[in-house]
Amino acid sequence: MVAAMQIDVATTIAHMADQLERMAGWLDKARAHATAKKFDADTLLTARLAPDQFALVRQLGSACDTAKLAAARLTGKAAPGHADDQKSVADCQARIADTVAYLRGLTPADYARAAEAKITFGWMPGKYLEPANYVVNFAVPNFHFHLAHAYAILRHNGVDLGKMDYLAGLVFKDL
Amino acid sequence: MVAAMQIDVATTIAHMADQLERMAGWLDKARAHATAKKFDADTLLTARLAPDQFALVRQLGSACDTAKLAAARLTGKAAPGHADDQKSVADCQARIADTVAYLRGLTPADYARAAEAKITFGWMPGKYLEPANYVVNFAVPNFHFHLAHAYAILRHNGVDLGKMDYLAGLVFKDL
Repeated sequence: MVAAMQIDVATTIAHMADQLERMAGWLDKARAHATAKKFDADTLLTARLAPDQFALVRQLGSACDTAKLAAARLTGKAAPGHADDQKSVADCQARIADTVAYLRGLTPADYARAAEAKITFGWMPGKYLEPANYVVNFAVPNFHFHLAHAYAILRHNGVDLGKMDYLAGLVFKDL
Repeated sequence: MVAAMQIDVATTIAHMADQLERMAGWLDKARAHATAKKFDADTLLTARLAPDQFALVRQLGSACDTAKLAAARLTGKAAPGHADDQKSVADCQARIADTVAYLRGLTPADYARAAEAKITFGWMPGKYLEPANYVVNFAVPNFHFHLAHAYAILRHNGVDLGKMDYLAGLVFKDL
């Protein structure tokens, strides 16, 4: 009997850092698109797909925060704080870089006690999620929700992105 | 030394079935919205956010296929085939239900040899991904890419959805 396949949670969080670096690259493409079309790239930050959805700037910030808070809750290592006050693409890229630096500073050993964590939320007092439920059913879906919305807003506004700009860290090997 | 936290791949795939059931529910809300606004809900299937992105009908189908192909590749259990020929919301919900039934029919034991799989793609001949890289870096991100695009298309067209329609299977416990 072979043991069922398991995936280390450190791998899942490290992948979020890869994805956030991809997201920063989308903003480089947005800046190039704006330059070619002679508009200010920072105007994209207020773009949104529905009037009661977050604009791009908050989609970017929420992707960052979902990743860093997942890491912080699982490792107990405090994450850097970021206000939602970004005014420019450069500001957003700085927030992404700061988040990625925090995530890259964590090691697999930092997750040694992750399975014991009780995951709480300010909006759900007196309750907690078990860490596997939190990672699989909240952190990963919420991260991609905001990441994909950021991508979709940029695509909707003409930025030249494709699926391979979204997928990060594929390691193809020879058969 | 506590072992680092691991998540069973069967849990990750089972969560995809939960998410697909949520997606079917979004289509119920789309139908209700269309009825209230007196338009044919099936017209939403051709809606897209950019002219060179998939329309809703293909976003729905791609989410289904990403989940079922991940399960099939990891378990070796053949998945049901589906053509991209859905003409109605009802057709799409039938495809989702068929995919969910396949996923729900798998057991954790079916994944016993998943870690040995070499994951290949028709578009990358002679190459493979190791299964953990495939799950974390391809299957899960690609699944949410299409799921979130389906959600965003519906939101962009006025369907009344919120974040808790996206997140599935949270099990809050008392502290």
